[in-house]
Amino acid sequence: MLRGKIEIHNRVSIDSSSEGKSGTLDLIYTPGVASVARKISTDKRLVYDFTSKWNNVAIVCDGTRVLGLGNIGPEGAIPVMEGKSVLFKALGGINAFPICIDTRDKEEIIKLVKAIQPVFGAVNIEDIESPKVLEIVERLHKDLSIPVFHDDQHGTAIIALAGLLNALRLLQKRIEEVRVVIAGAGSAGYGIFRILNEAGCKNIVVTDSSGAIYEGRFGTTKNPYKKEIASKTNSNKLRTMNQDAIVFALSNPDPEIVPSDALRAGAKIVATGRSDFANQINNAVVFPSILRALLDLRVKTITEDMLVSVAKAIADIVDRDHLKYDYIIPKVDDPRIIHIVTETLKKAIQIHIAKKVQ
Amino acid sequence: MLRGKIEIHNRVSIDSSSEGKSGTLDLIYTPGVASVARKISTDKRLVYDFTSKWNNVAIVCDGTRVLGLGNIGPEGAIPVMEGKSVLFKALGGINAFPICIDTRDKEEIIKLVKAIQPVFGAVNIEDIESPKVLEIVERLHKDLSIPVFHDDQHGTAIIALAGLLNALRLLQKRIEEVRVVIAGAGSAGYGIFRILNEAGCKNIVVTDSSGAIYEGRFGTTKNPYKKEIASKTNSNKLRTMNQDAIVFALSNPDPEIVPSDALRAGAKIVATGRSDFANQINNAVVFPSILRALLDLRVKTITEDMLVSVAKAIADIVDRDHLKYDYIIPKVDDPRIIHIVTETLKKAIQIHIAKKVQ
Repeated sequence: MLRGKIEIHNRVSIDSSSEGKSGTLDLIYTPGVASVARKISTDKRLVYDFTSKWNNVAIVCDGTRVLGLGNIGPEGAIPVMEGKSVLFKALGGINAFPICIDTRDKEEIIKLVKAIQPVFGAVNIEDIESPKVLEIVERLHKDLSIPVFHDDQHGTAIIALAGLLNALRLLQKRIEEVRVVIAGAGSAGYGIFRILNEAGCKNIVVTDSSGAIYEGRFGTTKNPYKKEIASKTNSNKLRTMNQDAIVFALSNPDPEIVPSDALRAGAKIVATGRSDFANQINNAVVFPSILRALLDLRVKTITEDMLVSVAKAIADIVDRDHLKYDYIIPKVDDPRIIHIVTETLKKAIQIHIAKKVQ
Repeated sequence: MLRGKIEIHNRVSIDSSSEGKSGTLDLIYTPGVASVARKISTDKRLVYDFTSKWNNVAIVCDGTRVLGLGNIGPEGAIPVMEGKSVLFKALGGINAFPICIDTRDKEEIIKLVKAIQPVFGAVNIEDIESPKVLEIVERLHKDLSIPVFHDDQHGTAIIALAGLLNALRLLQKRIEEVRVVIAGAGSAGYGIFRILNEAGCKNIVVTDSSGAIYEGRFGTTKNPYKKEIASKTNSNKLRTMNQDAIVFALSNPDPEIVPSDALRAGAKIVATGRSDFANQINNAVVFPSILRALLDLRVKTITEDMLVSVAKAIADIVDRDHLKYDYIIPKVDDPRIIHIVTETLKKAIQIHIAKKVQ
């Protein structure tokens, strides 16, 4: 039995065999470590030079919305988060530790993440139920001194848009003219709605468990995120699929519809979140490289237009000659992704700073 | 520059090259991981079999009492806790992650540790100011479902007693008859007082920043731990050092007195916490093996008599023929320690359970 997919390794070896004289142990532990500790305490920024903070990410999950499995608790979430850790390391060279927490209280979660930030260079919020998580992410983004990435929202949005751009290219449709239906108004649905809106998509319908969301349906709701959706989507009423339809069935582990059924129903291009079907629209393509870039660039703010830029860059990794119905998105471990995402984010941040200066 | 002494390694490799058919990636991430997640959610005990919990330790520190440096903040504490992680791994094979937290509030710390327990097999409380930490440890011990080890208290106590037993053996003194003065009534002082008391030492004086502690001095104090000390120590008044005195100057990185000065002042046996002097009385000798044993035996309760048993076993590692003034304690990386500590704890736990059954 594997009993865990990750482990901690030492980057130094200990040697206390040299009796009576200073060995490595003196440097990595007491007394030698004291001088480094003192230096950091006088200038906190040195923590990035003298500790692993620069490369540590906390994967924070309360187990309330794990994959498509729902509320399976923090223990059940651990194997999923360890799987993410493996991808973070293999694809981004990042030390990501699963912080699976036994509290579902919004305020407690916010307090906890703020409290553990000293040892992490970034936070990845993961599989926490919506809309609670959307507020948590907003609040943390304001209060933390390190970047907060919400993979279910931001990662999924980037990769969905990247796939959509290539699918539209193949079918010679324009994003400004297509109608998009998003089934689900949780973190992913909200993130996808936001990025599509930013990318110029004008005709979006979002559905939740009660049907299509429209302006006026939320007279008394407490969910500001659905209100925001309602104000900007579904100007016409929902009909059947158009010609040359594109279907992204992204629920995991079980897609809303299997590709063969979607194709039979008239879809031209189908994608799922799984690696065992063609066209894997999975945030795993993007989260390791985004976090790598955030850690390396040491920036805090990710704006909607930055997400769109990254989506376009990822779409362009699939060159025109190779683009086909069953290949609209680069593979999870495509080695070009990291470099392109980092460069794209670097440029986007420079533009962002330049705009602020004006 | 090292930029961190630990890192996360993957215990599996990813392989998504097998397009369209199930590869390793499917197993470690979605969709394969879902079946394991589901199993754990129906039986939480499986988390020990399917994740790294069985071998994970949280090193929790708020940075208020780091080594002898005092309140240097959570960032300053990170290099010290990473050093502990290195020792945990090298000497105990344990994945110990530094949770250096940006809150000094007792209730918040307790809440936080309770919240992060799902992914850890044990908690090591470290370098938090006293007496706050003593209450934190007591409360967590009651409330957590995993063991709580307070190294500054328990680890230091074990190793100090182990060293003392061997020093007394060399000088042919009996623990029941010696007078012991403990300078400092923080975590270490409290832990050492408790273990000496349990080991049969009857004449103990503990001093704090206001001088010797005695019954009656704490009419109005809010510190129940010092009250406990006062009720059981200092029945006579404090005098000068006895003949053949033993001096353990355990403060780190700077001992209260350097060995040469202590010897000149009449001490016969001197120990410090540092590895660059002879006789290193350092909890590093014991914490990796104690935690290894706690994780392997999966027990929650460590009682005072168990600590004494472990101290005696560690003292006995130094066999009579080799025992000398400059060698009263095994080396930090003595390979016999782990096995002996585990076996001793196993027996002590069996006795503990047998007593309960009676």
